[in-house]
Amino acid sequence: MSILVAGSVALDSVETPFGTAERVIGGSGVFFSAAASLLCPVRLLGVVGDDYPFEKLDFLSERGVDLSGVEHAEGESFLWSGQYSDDLSSRDTLETRLGVFADFKPSVPEAFKDSRYVFLGNIDPVLQMEVLDQMPEPAAVICDTMNYWIEGSREALLELLHRVDILMVNDAEARQLSGDHNLPRAARWIQERGPRFVVVKKGEHGAMLFGPDWMFSVPGYPLAVVFDPTGAGDCFAGGFVGHMASVDSQEPDVLRRAMVYGSVMGSYAVESFSVDRFHSLDEAAIQGRMREFKEMTAFELELEASDG
Amino acid sequence: MSILVAGSVALDSVETPFGTAERVIGGSGVFFSAAASLLCPVRLLGVVGDDYPFEKLDFLSERGVDLSGVEHAEGESFLWSGQYSDDLSSRDTLETRLGVFADFKPSVPEAFKDSRYVFLGNIDPVLQMEVLDQMPEPAAVICDTMNYWIEGSREALLELLHRVDILMVNDAEARQLSGDHNLPRAARWIQERGPRFVVVKKGEHGAMLFGPDWMFSVPGYPLAVVFDPTGAGDCFAGGFVGHMASVDSQEPDVLRRAMVYGSVMGSYAVESFSVDRFHSLDEAAIQGRMREFKEMTAFELELEASDG
Repeated sequence: MSILVAGSVALDSVETPFGTAERVIGGSGVFFSAAASLLCPVRLLGVVGDDYPFEKLDFLSERGVDLSGVEHAEGESFLWSGQYSDDLSSRDTLETRLGVFADFKPSVPEAFKDSRYVFLGNIDPVLQMEVLDQMPEPAAVICDTMNYWIEGSREALLELLHRVDILMVNDAEARQLSGDHNLPRAARWIQERGPRFVVVKKGEHGAMLFGPDWMFSVPGYPLAVVFDPTGAGDCFAGGFVGHMASVDSQEPDVLRRAMVYGSVMGSYAVESFSVDRFHSLDEAAIQGRMREFKEMTAFELELEASDG
Repeated sequence: MSILVAGSVALDSVETPFGTAERVIGGSGVFFSAAASLLCPVRLLGVVGDDYPFEKLDFLSERGVDLSGVEHAEGESFLWSGQYSDDLSSRDTLETRLGVFADFKPSVPEAFKDSRYVFLGNIDPVLQMEVLDQMPEPAAVICDTMNYWIEGSREALLELLHRVDILMVNDAEARQLSGDHNLPRAARWIQERGPRFVVVKKGEHGAMLFGPDWMFSVPGYPLAVVFDPTGAGDCFAGGFVGHMASVDSQEPDVLRRAMVYGSVMGSYAVESFSVDRFHSLDEAAIQGRMREFKEMTAFELELEASDG
């Protein structure tokens, strides 16, 4: 099953305590595709300027990402530059230049319209809606957003939510959107406005999935060195949606495992700049870390002890 | 197997967004005993002043807590008063009056000296050491501490660590003690100074157990209402040590399950003021929440899917 992802194809300039990366490939569409394509075919919808080092996306097409939906426009590519604090717990955005993204009108290629899974990366909710309007009958719509849109495009976002199956946000965004500090209550607030499922990403503290009448929690992977957190959330989404789509199911056991795939991809994302870690990532490494998550979280209730 | 717990037997005055409690029973020794005694016999070592409503501890003795190690001294009992922020994420200490605790010289009754498990609640490391000096051969020493001692009694605390098997701290304390923001590295730093195991409590984000070459992570219980967080860490410790002691084992599978018992007890602690919730807590409720933790964290690797 194919995934359609609509997201930014950007150039990132990042400063961490460990070093600096200048104008490396990034953006929600790229990070998502790098992770999801390890599990499932991906179709990318976005736009780049004439300054974009497009050949750096070759490894994605070699891995089954269809880049024919990435429009080439005249002008500068979307650029984000940021600086992380010494303990990597916070970051300052130094610059955001929309470039060609400012006039982007997403047009879904005919060949992409049968994608059963749609991931709406963190872009203007108005654009997210325009993408959705072009998709005849997706099996599931998964949507990300951020503080900027929650604050500035609240009405458009709330309208969009009615058509979203799974909203994927971080803890601060869930709190901001709902106006409730308590995450279970914040998730419930969101669920009452459309999405059947809410995924709350909590960085080093892991992630939670709130379903209709059940929830699932996965811890963060205990990395001794977090090199660059940029894109971790998008790679989480890539792992999550990638697994869902690969088995074409939204059953609880699939969504639980999808949460762990998301966590695995997010943990790899932070190990290096840009999507560098995904060049060499293979099935064995992914499954190895899946097993680590299992070992890290598994316990037996006493009643079961005799089975072990 | 019995547990010896040395800790404060205090009066707490607490203000939360939900209400106010004046001079209710609290302190690390009381919270720990309330939780641990549901799993295992407990012996409490501490001191109270002549103003202490000792009859309020009757429910503990009825449940197998030996209170004969609680000294009655002339003067005021230890008093703590604090106020929580609206979202309960932080608190201000309004007043701490040591009272009779200022001159406390812990003397372990002869009948307590065969306790195989020793929990050193959050008190002066010098007193913790004095307790330990009186215990001939405990199977395991579990120790809590706080920012006040890490800052003001660092040398005594580091000396004590050599004799501690399991250090149990919160994330801020682990970072402060080690000087490292990264929790896996902070835990390693602590392990190099004595404890084989480090438990890091993270409040709503759950808790982590770092062993010699493995780790375990348990999420927080997703409560829609946190009423009063006071004592949650001590009740976590009570559940953890209570389970260890009840099966008299420090094997990995026991410590993993102990982490979940700790989380269950901590989750009940925050549902009401003081130890109120523990009056009515029974085995069925505890096992019910243990199963909820299992359901909240269990997932199948794909390789195992065919077994399910």
